[in-house]
Amino acid sequence: MKVVKFGGSSLATGAQMAKVLNIIVADPQRQIIVTSAPGKRFTSDIKVTDLLIKYAQQVLQHQDYSSTQQQIWARYQEIADYFHLTATQLRPLKTCLWDLPQKDYPNDDYLMAAFKAHGECLNAQLLAIILQKKVPTRYVDPKTAGIQVSNDPQDAHILQSSYQQIAKINIGHDRIVVPGFYGLTSDQQIATFSRGGSDITGAILAYGLQADLYENFTDVNAVYAADPRLVDHPQAIQTMTYRELRELSYAGFSVFHDEALLPAIEGQVPIKIKNTNHPDLPGTLIVPQKYFQPQKPITGVASSSHFAALYLHRYLLNKEVGFTLKLLKIFYEFNISYEHMPSGIDDLTVIFDKRQFTPTKQQQLLERVKMVIQPDELEWIDDYAIIMVVGEGIRLFPDFLQKIFDPLARQSIRVHMINQGASQISIMLGTKQSDAALAVQQIYQSFFPNQNGDE
Amino acid sequence: MKVVKFGGSSLATGAQMAKVLNIIVADPQRQIIVTSAPGKRFTSDIKVTDLLIKYAQQVLQHQDYSSTQQQIWARYQEIADYFHLTATQLRPLKTCLWDLPQKDYPNDDYLMAAFKAHGECLNAQLLAIILQKKVPTRYVDPKTAGIQVSNDPQDAHILQSSYQQIAKINIGHDRIVVPGFYGLTSDQQIATFSRGGSDITGAILAYGLQADLYENFTDVNAVYAADPRLVDHPQAIQTMTYRELRELSYAGFSVFHDEALLPAIEGQVPIKIKNTNHPDLPGTLIVPQKYFQPQKPITGVASSSHFAALYLHRYLLNKEVGFTLKLLKIFYEFNISYEHMPSGIDDLTVIFDKRQFTPTKQQQLLERVKMVIQPDELEWIDDYAIIMVVGEGIRLFPDFLQKIFDPLARQSIRVHMINQGASQISIMLGTKQSDAALAVQQIYQSFFPNQNGDE
Repeated sequence: MKVVKFGGSSLATGAQMAKVLNIIVADPQRQIIVTSAPGKRFTSDIKVTDLLIKYAQQVLQHQDYSSTQQQIWARYQEIADYFHLTATQLRPLKTCLWDLPQKDYPNDDYLMAAFKAHGECLNAQLLAIILQKKVPTRYVDPKTAGIQVSNDPQDAHILQSSYQQIAKINIGHDRIVVPGFYGLTSDQQIATFSRGGSDITGAILAYGLQADLYENFTDVNAVYAADPRLVDHPQAIQTMTYRELRELSYAGFSVFHDEALLPAIEGQVPIKIKNTNHPDLPGTLIVPQKYFQPQKPITGVASSSHFAALYLHRYLLNKEVGFTLKLLKIFYEFNISYEHMPSGIDDLTVIFDKRQFTPTKQQQLLERVKMVIQPDELEWIDDYAIIMVVGEGIRLFPDFLQKIFDPLARQSIRVHMINQGASQISIMLGTKQSDAALAVQQIYQSFFPNQNGDE
Repeated sequence: MKVVKFGGSSLATGAQMAKVLNIIVADPQRQIIVTSAPGKRFTSDIKVTDLLIKYAQQVLQHQDYSSTQQQIWARYQEIADYFHLTATQLRPLKTCLWDLPQKDYPNDDYLMAAFKAHGECLNAQLLAIILQKKVPTRYVDPKTAGIQVSNDPQDAHILQSSYQQIAKINIGHDRIVVPGFYGLTSDQQIATFSRGGSDITGAILAYGLQADLYENFTDVNAVYAADPRLVDHPQAIQTMTYRELRELSYAGFSVFHDEALLPAIEGQVPIKIKNTNHPDLPGTLIVPQKYFQPQKPITGVASSSHFAALYLHRYLLNKEVGFTLKLLKIFYEFNISYEHMPSGIDDLTVIFDKRQFTPTKQQQLLERVKMVIQPDELEWIDDYAIIMVVGEGIRLFPDFLQKIFDPLARQSIRVHMINQGASQISIMLGTKQSDAALAVQQIYQSFFPNQNGDE
């Protein structure tokens, strides 16, 4: 049995949904279907989730929301028209959307969560009606499915008790359509996962139902060995491990929601990334380590530029017990998480996701560090790109470092940070932002010479 | 004006001390002379400091110490005989050694400190008597010199107030002999620096007196670009920076006391390492960064094997604010300092100096980490060598990484940790202990091809 999740662009129009129907019907094992809300139909389009946020905000601010309601409904109506659904069939969905402002919510956050969740909720009901014309289908809402979540209205986490409930879902020979992105709290309130959380619902169901495969249909053919915006026709990755995906995601690969990997890992359910528009292509299979035999040193290379670094130097620093502790307490006070902390003998570089900082917060942090730590040198490095070179195979190929650094040296690219721990599935390099693209290209060419991808 | 410090082997015999006299007299700028206690005359010999520790222990344990007294005195008598000193000249020194048990000490630690300090104290007085025959010389004890230290009898630290006192030392045209290794507390008790601390006294005097140069005479010709036990005739380093020395010392180069660098750095006094037995050789000059123009990418390569590592993995680890804080609090409770902490995306490797651990302490630490952090994976890696490749020049040579990793790849040496922060004067590699020697040899050959040193 397979759990199949479709992304927003796969469910954005009637024509897209027709592809989805074909994909579902083509494989009788595709029994559990998880929906997203309708996504963009064209570049300047607005996602239904964003319209729902607007709807909620207008309700909260006592503004006129009728045109927003109409705008949202038009998206579903367009899909329904494509499949010639009747007004009678659609009435419950429309009522559901119209009634949202009249319901009771514990607070504004829960109101917002409930509004947002209806993008997926309505789309799942719609898909179930359409699919029912072809194969026996049931709509199952997250409450019935047993998806119980924490009391964090817009950043909920699954409760472990859910999995026992999910295992009890009676599937039979039907197709089951479940809306993604949300669950129910202990007070039966809707609470959503973080944005893009339909991936999480799919992974939770795949784990709870012990699915053989979790298929994630989106609008890319595969996960690529490098960002196609940086490298011309990069190779599609056929098979990779959970850990490799996680490491590449970290540095900019955004094919799959981070938090969705966790249930898949816990259940050891393989994940397949496929393209709704080209379901014939092999896609990328993401598997547990134990099923993976590395054929080459690296699987992919990624880069990301949203970093900054704090450099500290003080003589005999690393003879002092508790020094880093002092530093981390400061970060904790500022509610700042650090990413990495490579250290020399008497110096320390702390790398941050700089999106956490306002200029004021950065300034305050520096002043506090200066006061508490009294370093000999203190520098804020704002121009910081991180390059991740990732592969389960690197431990098997002793020349992989050579293959990274030779081409960088030829291009006179300076690497000002290197960080590799014991896990040995990745190596992290720091460069200037202006060097990052060339570095990715050089490293890609070094490991994938003269190879073209499938596009 | 120069401060000149002589090590234990340079002052171990009359013949050695004759060399010291020549060195001092040869340069009228060598006005401040700092002594060590007499060191080993041959491999199986016992250092006077170790005999003084035995003397103190016998006193504390009310054992017969007369033969130890005699054994210590014999070392000074041997030197005195070489220079035909009279019993009258020696009487004050002998009395000083004999009277040690009769004095009052605040506690056993201070007794131990006072006994140990007399190795340097007597040697300085002896040298002053001998030197006086050739040039006008004064013995100045640390109290008169103004060396005021903290109340840590055997691990004292200089008080900043000392420097004003030291600056007032009236040098005139005399040579001034000062015993190394100790200072006086606010209660006028003798307290010693950490072992090998005569280097520290020299550096303190050089800073306080604003010396032009601090010459450190020992029994090696120079600081070498690699350990002569690993590399055949390594190149002598002509000039290097304070920071380079510090980084190389960290990984096993033990030419100069770590804590002695600090006053030299504060005073920006250049340090010269020279050999008492070959004073004609150029030695190694250690200078502030600002006076250093790197001519080649690296200055030296060193390795050390007294490390162990703790490897931790937990999914989404690096999204958790405060995770490392929890970990460091544990280390703090155990009074364990960590050396480095390279991290992957969801993993962390913590590198320790393993000499801090007993097997029990290690086990307790692992259990505590497991309980508090609940990692998915936890591993203790005992076979850990660290290799430091050090050079102010590495920032100027983009191919230096290539020159490190190419030869390692050719030898199939696996590097399982790489750590380089923003300071860019060193890169740290982790290997198995059995690979460390070969790695050092390969890296040395890569940067110093076909170069022979001066020995």
